[in-house]
Parts: sequence; C-alpha cells; structure tokens
Amino acid sequence: MTQNSDERALDYNHVFAQAIDRLHSEGRYRVFIDILRNKGMFPNARCFAGHNGPKPITVWCSNDYLAMGQHPDVIAAMEEALHDVGAGSGGTRNIGGNTHYHVDLEGELADLHGKDGALLFTSGYVSNEAALATLGRLLPGCIVFSDALNHASMIAGIRHSGCEKRVFRHNDLAHLEELLAAAPVGVAKLIAFESVYSMDGDVAPIAEICDLADKYNALTYLDEVHAVGMYGPRGGGISDRDGVAHRLTIIEGTLAKAIGVMGGYIAADRTIIDVIRSYAPGFIFTTSLSPVLVAGALASVRHLKASSAERDGQQAAAARLKAMMRDAGLPVMASTTHIVPLMVGDPVKAKKISDILLAEYGVYVQPINYPTVPRGTERLRFTPGPTHSEAMMRELVEALAEIWDRLEIRKAA
Amino acid sequence: MTQNSDERALDYNHVFAQAIDRLHSEGRYRVFIDILRNKGMFPNARCFAGHNGPKPITVWCSNDYLAMGQHPDVIAAMEEALHDVGAGSGGTRNIGGNTHYHVDLEGELADLHGKDGALLFTSGYVSNEAALATLGRLLPGCIVFSDALNHASMIAGIRHSGCEKRVFRHNDLAHLEELLAAAPVGVAKLIAFESVYSMDGDVAPIAEICDLADKYNALTYLDEVHAVGMYGPRGGGISDRDGVAHRLTIIEGTLAKAIGVMGGYIAADRTIIDVIRSYAPGFIFTTSLSPVLVAGALASVRHLKASSAERDGQQAAAARLKAMMRDAGLPVMASTTHIVPLMVGDPVKAKKISDILLAEYGVYVQPINYPTVPRGTERLRFTPGPTHSEAMMRELVEALAEIWDRLEIRKAA
Ligand SMILES: Cc1ncc(COP(=O)(O)O)c(C=O)c1O
Ligand SMILES: Cc1ncc(COP(=O)(O)O)c(C=O)c1O
Repeated sequence: MTQNSDERALDYNHVFAQAIDRLHSEGRYRVFIDILRNKGMFPNARCFAGHNGPKPITVWCSNDYLAMGQHPDVIAAMEEALHDVGAGSGGTRNIGGNTHYHVDLEGELADLHGKDGALLFTSGYVSNEAALATLGRLLPGCIVFSDALNHASMIAGIRHSGCEKRVFRHNDLAHLEELLAAAPVGVAKLIAFESVYSMDGDVAPIAEICDLADKYNALTYLDEVHAVGMYGPRGGGISDRDGVAHRLTIIEGTLAKAIGVMGGYIAADRTIIDVIRSYAPGFIFTTSLSPVLVAGALASVRHLKASSAERDGQQAAAARLKAMMRDAGLPVMASTTHIVPLMVGDPVKAKKISDILLAEYGVYVQPINYPTVPRGTERLRFTPGPTHSEAMMRELVEALAEIWDRLEIRKAA
Repeated sequence: MTQNSDERALDYNHVFAQAIDRLHSEGRYRVFIDILRNKGMFPNARCFAGHNGPKPITVWCSNDYLAMGQHPDVIAAMEEALHDVGAGSGGTRNIGGNTHYHVDLEGELADLHGKDGALLFTSGYVSNEAALATLGRLLPGCIVFSDALNHASMIAGIRHSGCEKRVFRHNDLAHLEELLAAAPVGVAKLIAFESVYSMDGDVAPIAEICDLADKYNALTYLDEVHAVGMYGPRGGGISDRDGVAHRLTIIEGTLAKAIGVMGGYIAADRTIIDVIRSYAPGFIFTTSLSPVLVAGALASVRHLKASSAERDGQQAAAARLKAMMRDAGLPVMASTTHIVPLMVGDPVKAKKISDILLAEYGVYVQPINYPTVPRGTERLRFTPGPTHSEAMMRELVEALAEIWDRLEIRKAA
C-alpha cells in the first residue's frame, strides 16, 4: 500500500455491509432464537422469536448435557453464595477476586483429573486460548501438532502462541507420527487434541497419542470439554474412562456444558499451573469468575463425582434415539458418544428443517453450518440427555421423518 | 533451528521452572489472597490465607466500585433467574444460549450509550480482544493507533487483528495527530483508547480525539471499563458525562466492575454489531453468559441509570480520602477520578506495605506491580466507594502514615 494507492476517503460502512452480504449470499447469516428454559422442567423451554408471546418448546440442542443447570444442589449452592458474598468477585484473581470458592473448586478439579493443580478461567474458550498461547510462547521454537478438527478456541491459542503449527488428519495416528518424526529431535513439541469431537461424536485414541508423545518427547494438551462430567467413573472425561489421565500434560475442560454452569479450566502439574497463572494475559487481566458460578460448579462437580445416574441416563437416551432414527431411515452419523448428528449436507436445507421443527412441532434444534463444521457437511445435532423421555423422542423422530419426506432429503443408505 | 541444533531431549520442566524463578528474582511472584466478601456489609470481608480461620478485613481494592454486587435489586434479579431458568445458558449464543435476558440487556446497554445495538461477551477482556481483532481483520491494511497505556486486553486484540500498530504517547493529542498525518489517506484507521485509565486515574480528552478522528477519517474505539456506571447522568461513562458518546464508533464496557456482576460488551451502530456478532471467534465459539449473571447486570444497569446516589457517594469518598492522604503527607498521585493511587516505586516495598496492612491492620489493598504497571512505578491503588466510612478512612490513613515512617519511605514533596 503506497502513499498514493487510494486518496479517496474510505467508506467503512460499505466494507462492513459487504461482509454481512457475503453471509446472506452463502445462506449462513445467523439469526439467534430467543428462548428461556424452564428450571425444573428441562428440556422444556419458552421461545420468544416471531411469536405472539412465549411458545412452549422442547430443547434438543443444549450442551447442558446432564441437566445439571437445574440440579437442586447446584441451585442451592448458587443461592447460598449469592446471599453470602454477593453477585460478582469484584476483581482479578490477583486483586481482590480470589475467593475461597475459587480455591476450593481448583482443588476439586485437580482431584477429578488426578493432577497437582487446576486453574480457572472465565470460559473454556479462554482456557484454551490462554493456556495454548502461553505454553507456546514459553517454549521458544515449539512446534504444535494439531488435530484437523480442533475447536476454534484451540486454533486461536495456537495462532497466538506464534508457534509453527502442523495439522494432522483427524484422529490419524500414522499421519501424526509422520509429522512428529519429521520434526527436529531437540525442539519443543506439543500435541493438541480433543477427546470427544462435539460435531461428529467420535473419540480420540488418547493412549496411542500418549505413546507417540512419549516416543517423540512431546507435551500433550487434551480438550475434554465435551466429556467432563459424562465419562469415567467420576466424570473425569474420556481420559478418566480410559485410565490415561496421568499420561497427559494438560487436561482442559469447561464448567458450561455437563457441569451446567459457566467457566473453564486446565488441570496439570504444579509448575505448569504456576507458569500459566503467572504469564497468561487472558488469566491475569480479567475479573475472576463470579463466586456464584464457582459455588454452583463446585456443587455440580462434587455431585457428578459421586453419582453415575445422570451419565447412565444420558447414554441410554443417546442409544435409544440413535436406534429410533436408524429405524426411521434417517442419516444419523457414526457417533460413538452421547452426540447424535444427522447429516444434511446443505446450509439452506439444514436451516429449513430447523425452522419447520420450531414453527410446526415446537422442537428446537439449531442447524450447524460453516464455520462450525466444514462446508458441505451442514447438519442437525441432537443432544439427548437424562431428561428427554421416550415420548419426546418418538415425537421428534416422527416429525423428522415427515419433514425428510416433505423436503425430499436423502435418507440413509 | 537446524535438524542438528540440539539432539538432546528437551527438559520441559526446567524451562517452566526457570520462568517461575525469573518472577521470584524480580520480586514479582504473585500470591493470591484468599477472601470472601460479606454481602450486605461491603467493604467488610473474611480473609483465609495464613491465618487460623477466617479473619475480618476491610477491602480497599475492589473494582465493585459502587458495591452493586450486594445491591438488593441485583441479588433479587439473580435469584429469580436462578429459579426461573437455572444456572447456565447451556449453549453458545447461536445454539440454545440466546436467552431473553441477553436480548433485554443488549437493548438496555445500547440505550445507555445511545447506540443502535450492543453485544455481550463473557468478559470485558474478551470483548476487547474479540472486537478489536475482528474489526482489524475486516479492514485490510488498517492501521491501529493505540494509547501507550492501553489495557492488556486491547493490546491482545490489536495484536490478533494482524494490523500495523502505532503507539501514541499517553493522552498526547499532538503525538496522535503526528502519527495520523503520517499515514496514507485512503487507508483504514482505528484509534483505540480508554476513558479512565485505571492505574493512574486520569481521563482521556475524548472530544479532541474524536476531532482528530473526523479530520483523518478514523474509526474510534473507547474502553469505558472503569467509567461505566460511575460517570454521566445515567452512568454511561465519561463519554456520557462529556456528551460525546454519539461521536464514538464503538464503546466497550464491563459488567464486572461498577455494575458488580461479570461479563463485557460493546455498543455501536447496527452494522458493526452485526459484523462482530457474525465474525468474532471469541463471541461465536463460547457458551453465552449465564442468564443469572445477565439478569443481575440488567437490574444493576437499570438501577444506575435512574440513581445517582452511588456515584455521588463514590465521588465524595474519593475526594475525602485524597484530601486525608495529602494532609498526612502521603504521595497520592494526581488522579482526577475515583481512583486513589499511592506511588511507592519499588515492587518489594509495595508488597511489604500491603503485607503489613493485612497482617497488622486488617486492611486489604493489593500491591500493583509489573506487568500491570511499568517497572519503577509500583504502587498501592485504593478504590474508595459509597460504603467506605469516614472512620475506615481515618484508620487507613493512620496505618499508612505509621508504615511509611516505619519503612522510611519517601513522603510527598
Ligand atoms: C471443543 C470445545 N472446546 C472449548 C469450547 C469452549 O468452551 P466454553 O463454552 O466454556 O467457552 C467449546 C464450546 O463452546 C468446544 O466445543
Ligand atoms: C481498561 C480495562 N479494560 C478491560 C478490562 C477487562 O474487563 P473484565 O474484567 O470484564 O474482563 C479491564 C480489567 O479487568 C480493564 O482494566
């Protein structure tokens, strides 16, 4: 860009309006559905958008997977904290925002994953961004090996680390090893991946990835966001279920999905927790989580450590829904977890199905389009849980079968 | 780094331990003080660290500036939301996490700043990071003009935008103009700055910066994090007080300081809100704010729009404390706002004063050291508010005077 390249005044509004037009023309401009869930009656909710007054709906796409957001212990703990210490923490962790609740929850999460320590962040997104960016910056020359389907927050963290990134094909051990073997021996290496991939519902081969990490002296960073609370005898995630938590350098999780509240964290050994605590801007320069949220998450994590009823209910519901969909000839994808994705393969059709479900059947499931999934793999993603009844499933599958016929969408092979 | 540069296995733990050692040797390793505030009795709190059982303390460094975190309307609204809709939102804004509370609060914040719309983020940090990074990426070739004392979250956003950055000396209009004039005419420009600088307590010349923005066709981005709720007839910040909100492209704020809860936001015209909503990964790929927090923030913003009692109480307390400190010969810095910083100029001494205050006087004020402030300007930062009494101030100033003598620290000129 030279001094003379464009002497006309720039029209900012035009640039921004064009960016919005691109979304419309690709059929992926997002309209948020305005809802309120009904505590004590999940998955029931009220929907506000485009209706006269709130309309009752059934939510099929919540990531409050185990309905812990309405659990009496969680609500009671939050209410108590609200009355004991108030609404917000009032400061960063270093300046007045380090409450006893934070200290207790970090202890509980460290124990959940069998690690020395844990560190809370304002969200799972921020934990990934801050931890990966900081780790990378502390290890000069580090190469990050990243699964092709990693979440946007991990991608952001890796980008902000300034490290070189090598992307391995999704869950492809041979490709990962090829890339590791090609890198210089003495150079720092970090393998970043997820346990449950939330849009496909498949699972990473954690033990085998740890074997490769051992062989090539690499650190491992595992995002258990869609598994914490839901897998393993105490809800420690897939690494808990598989008995490999001790082999991972860092385990990351969220408090906003199966835990039912909000916030994120990492668990790791003492030194790593201490460096991230001390060097990550996304941890240091922000008000700490509200003690009300932390109290709720603490109650939720404690409950799920001791109770498997919610996990069992979720697994039963997911198996049942998948079977019913398969029986109805619907193209349910090959998920091995609680996630039930139906492939549509077109953003406009996916939106259309979702719109009909909401308007005609009172069923709320959001279409999943680019950039959340690759273009051409647009889908509907159902998250049945312990509170979805057999009757709700029957209604859902009948509605889907009817819409599939109406719109002449391809059925399963 | 060549293939042969280092064939020995890398010792990761050694690298991390060295990073921690650097902090110790500079006297800036941080130890978090473990506290619980007592709702209904702010600024009173309980302190847990290093004591047998909780010890009563007075908090002098909270950013819950107006004690709204204990306001009955805020508590009642949060309790109601907790019982009505539950603990968390259960999804991203696009997938099930867009509640009626979010829609209402965005409307209320847009109105507060006289803008078309507003957009909520999980924190003020994330709002700055996401908005600045996204704006910059949408404007190819954009140059960002950034105040030298901008907050870490703005610096992160600017860095992640990939834009060229030109830093102007703090609040220096002549330097800003010099840099603007030196940039090509047709190139996109963005001026990023704060209203109240929270570590010094001084204020930006907003109107004059808007004049320069007009002259050089630049967008303006104003962080009002330490002013929202506290300045202007309705608490819209310094831009509200000065009647210049309409001249700014984007106003950013937090719900975690004077509003007393947690979360962040931007307010701007329709198109800008829509592009950031549609393109910012830090907005899209994260669970939305808990409806409990949003309900509390909504009640707080509404209250502060109508009531000036908290603002008046804060201003009176700040003026009184500054006067008492000056009378006692303490080196209070030249703040023109509610922030009362005492210069120490040494990280070890600042920590020592803070430790004595906590251990001997039950006064909690955190030492502020690098990287929060430049090295050599380490300080104590007091945030008196409407709940700090004259008696508390007297106790504080007497304690400080005693410690200043004991440690033989320089008094004011
Ligand atoms: C794999 C993965 N990691 C991290 C996150 C971010 O977690 P949070 O919603 O707590 O920000 C999400 C989704 O939101 C996710 O799907
Ligand atoms: C100027 C400024 N901007 C943004 C932030 C971040 O706001 P939040 O605490 O809501 O993340 C802070 C402090 O935390 C700040 O001082």
